[in-house]
Amino acid sequence: MADLYLGIDLGGTNIKTGLVREDGKLLDAVSVPTGKGPDSVIGNMVASAKQVMGKTRVDKAQVAALGIASPGALDTVHGIVKMAGNLEGFINLPLLERVRAGLGIPGVLENDANAAAFGEYFGGIGKTKGVKDMVLFTLGTGVGGGIIYQGELIRGSHDVAAELGHMVIQPGGIPCTCGRRGCLERYASASACGDRAMAALQSSKEPSTLREVLAKNGAVTSADVVYHAETRHDAFADRLWDETCRFLAMGCVTSLYHTDPELIVLAGGMVKAGEFLRARVEKYIKELYFDLAPMQAGIVLAVLGNDAGLIGAAGLARQAREKGKLR
Amino acid sequence: MADLYLGIDLGGTNIKTGLVREDGKLLDAVSVPTGKGPDSVIGNMVASAKQVMGKTRVDKAQVAALGIASPGALDTVHGIVKMAGNLEGFINLPLLERVRAGLGIPGVLENDANAAAFGEYFGGIGKTKGVKDMVLFTLGTGVGGGIIYQGELIRGSHDVAAELGHMVIQPGGIPCTCGRRGCLERYASASACGDRAMAALQSSKEPSTLREVLAKNGAVTSADVVYHAETRHDAFADRLWDETCRFLAMGCVTSLYHTDPELIVLAGGMVKAGEFLRARVEKYIKELYFDLAPMQAGIVLAVLGNDAGLIGAAGLARQAREKGKLR
Repeated sequence: MADLYLGIDLGGTNIKTGLVREDGKLLDAVSVPTGKGPDSVIGNMVASAKQVMGKTRVDKAQVAALGIASPGALDTVHGIVKMAGNLEGFINLPLLERVRAGLGIPGVLENDANAAAFGEYFGGIGKTKGVKDMVLFTLGTGVGGGIIYQGELIRGSHDVAAELGHMVIQPGGIPCTCGRRGCLERYASASACGDRAMAALQSSKEPSTLREVLAKNGAVTSADVVYHAETRHDAFADRLWDETCRFLAMGCVTSLYHTDPELIVLAGGMVKAGEFLRARVEKYIKELYFDLAPMQAGIVLAVLGNDAGLIGAAGLARQAREKGKLR
Repeated sequence: MADLYLGIDLGGTNIKTGLVREDGKLLDAVSVPTGKGPDSVIGNMVASAKQVMGKTRVDKAQVAALGIASPGALDTVHGIVKMAGNLEGFINLPLLERVRAGLGIPGVLENDANAAAFGEYFGGIGKTKGVKDMVLFTLGTGVGGGIIYQGELIRGSHDVAAELGHMVIQPGGIPCTCGRRGCLERYASASACGDRAMAALQSSKEPSTLREVLAKNGAVTSADVVYHAETRHDAFADRLWDETCRFLAMGCVTSLYHTDPELIVLAGGMVKAGEFLRARVEKYIKELYFDLAPMQAGIVLAVLGNDAGLIGAAGLARQAREKGKLR
């Protein structure tokens, strides 16, 4: 009986491919280098799928569908990567069709941030909490987002919904890679936290144990800020971290005002800070969210780490199969 | 054949009740004073419905369902007004059940801002444009919102979705009635435009023809700002208006980043400014919206005026009937 799903998470460096059960549990996964150029990358995607099936002794007949999580601007309805900055030659590429042809398994294509959000819904913290409505913020180099509403991804009418990192939270603020200023991701991403710490160290003479880090490494990361705030009780680091959490809370509140989810999930590299992140963001959400309704949405940390994308892609394949929407 | 729908828009001052066809066209409507206290208000709602049926010679058997648009905090699933500041005694009131009992017609209850948004979708500009995904901003005393996604209202998991007036667009900015600072409605509502103009006149000596208005009327409204900017070419008024439109555009962009609609609709009193509002907001949206995708969403003015709420309530009754969700 075909009750397994392949999830393929295509990244700029690696392809992570796994087999996922109907209940969202990951059976096993492999990681292979992405390669260069569409033919090579697609070949590696197909090979990685065969590799994980071989490793788990799963026959193709047991695989009901596949899901691909891809970066870039997509046309998910037609399974096309319109453009992906990190993947050479990925321009108007019918990625889903090509992978399907290579494996003989129908599937779906979804953007990586949405797939990761759906992963936490389908097999992670959203499943544990039993929710149908959630918003996920991925805190890494940038801030990614995904919105699940009544058990489904909000994709939008042009496949660009949930670009939560680009809501403006500081008019005229820090310039963003998108060409505008004051976007959430320039304040609340892991990179932004490090960048803001460095800028603040350089523009003041305030004492801080982070100065040793800057002198030694030539840079300060969000992990440094967390360590020096939480463990070394450095006031400067603590203020930087506090601001980061407060900016993130502003973004969360604006999202609460849009789709009113049951759960806000924080994901991505910065989640390593654990409760030191979660509790502070929660505190500021409570402070910022007006009390027409009590603050009912929970705020939690993601649990799937780097597996979220492939588990979500597999989950979306399962959902598409149920709805008769596999391609 | 029952193919008509009653829409009842309950306001703090008046109740507007109309009969709406399946295609969203308003047959006729009446307006009666709201009255005071639940019994009186509910009596007036029932009487207004009978009045419009009498006026149009429509028999109860022709009315398939009714929709009520109400202010306040609601439990739409159970048809209950939990609390409505403008309506004395409306505390945990089973409004839908009471009106249904008075008329013998099943129905639905929805908050007024959502109903107005659904009205433009079902019988107004959204219908004309043939869209399924839209976001509506109502610009009046505050800024209200409604989000339609794939032909349905996004209500949220606690019935408080689309509170778009309270997204923070200016951290630490102007205090809002919600207890926080920097909310969109303190910058982009009709009242906020007038308030900001008065504050700016009082804190500067810059010449402006608006000073005559302030001296004569003791206040400046958004309509004054528009008139003096557009017709009298007053530089001060023009700058105030420009800022208002730019703040509103920021809110629109943040909404685009959430649900990626096909259409943004501007509604409420400030829409009287017409193209002078629409074109400026559009200009700033184009400037602020990053070009991962071209700016594809249209930005348009609402067309139903004060009828939007009752038409939307009727439309929601129709939708609930189709889904077998009438109560």
